[in-house]
Amino acid sequence: MTQHESDQPTCTMHRALNVVGEKWTFVVLRDVFNGIVRFDDLQEHTGIARPVLAKRLATLVEEGLLEQVPYRVEGQRTRSQYQLTPKGRDLYPVLITLRQWGDRYLSDASTPTKINRHKGCGSPVHAVFQCESGHIIDQMEEIEAMTIVGV
Amino acid sequence: MTQHESDQPTCTMHRALNVVGEKWTFVVLRDVFNGIVRFDDLQEHTGIARPVLAKRLATLVEEGLLEQVPYRVEGQRTRSQYQLTPKGRDLYPVLITLRQWGDRYLSDASTPTKINRHKGCGSPVHAVFQCESGHIIDQMEEIEAMTIVGV
Repeated sequence: MTQHESDQPTCTMHRALNVVGEKWTFVVLRDVFNGIVRFDDLQEHTGIARPVLAKRLATLVEEGLLEQVPYRVEGQRTRSQYQLTPKGRDLYPVLITLRQWGDRYLSDASTPTKINRHKGCGSPVHAVFQCESGHIIDQMEEIEAMTIVGV
Repeated sequence: MTQHESDQPTCTMHRALNVVGEKWTFVVLRDVFNGIVRFDDLQEHTGIARPVLAKRLATLVEEGLLEQVPYRVEGQRTRSQYQLTPKGRDLYPVLITLRQWGDRYLSDASTPTKINRHKGCGSPVHAVFQCESGHIIDQMEEIEAMTIVGV
């Protein structure tokens, strides 16, 4: 089937990109994953202008990736912070695989070394592939895509 | 550190997004991963206008994700096809995790069921996380990010 860009895509990867396929989405989500959840902190860390950031966060809330939660420091007005929904949290594997790729091909002396650790034992964590028969697959050539029900 | 969007980012995930952080990148790469490698076939499948697609493919070649390889059907002029470089092939985990997320949250009756299979045994393949001590981690809450060398 020809999939024109303007159509509602039937490929779920393409649909996923319609939700998260802009660079800023990941830049904001990365910070929220790293525990930067208050509007003011997000603004300072990302450097995105306040009205633009507010709009972006509203989009992420609308898409069901983030939830807006009010908080209040005593003596100040109520402000917003954001927490990941399960749908948002499940994007973590995409962020990790993206950063693993960046670490491999785009790192240099100026990039900090970041690792993901297993909380349980402290060892570094990597994305791998496992088939339902239990084989761990580290060669991408060992994986093939297959459509079960075509449209 | 404040990371303004206009700066050269020190975060490798952010750098990765500067290379692949546009929706069309994944739409084109998805097709190449699926074996659609000739310019004319990519044009037909993506529905992207020829001059735009040519420019996008040139960008992917320039970034070192694809290699342009000439081919010639007898009696016709030489045309272009594209093959993944190791750097391009190593984006496969990002595509798979993105599609897994799309399958989970954005699928409906109109979306074909696609699976990734282990060539060796035919079983469906999923992205999982494994720590260097050998634990398989399927709960994202079990993973924490840590900066080894800050900037």
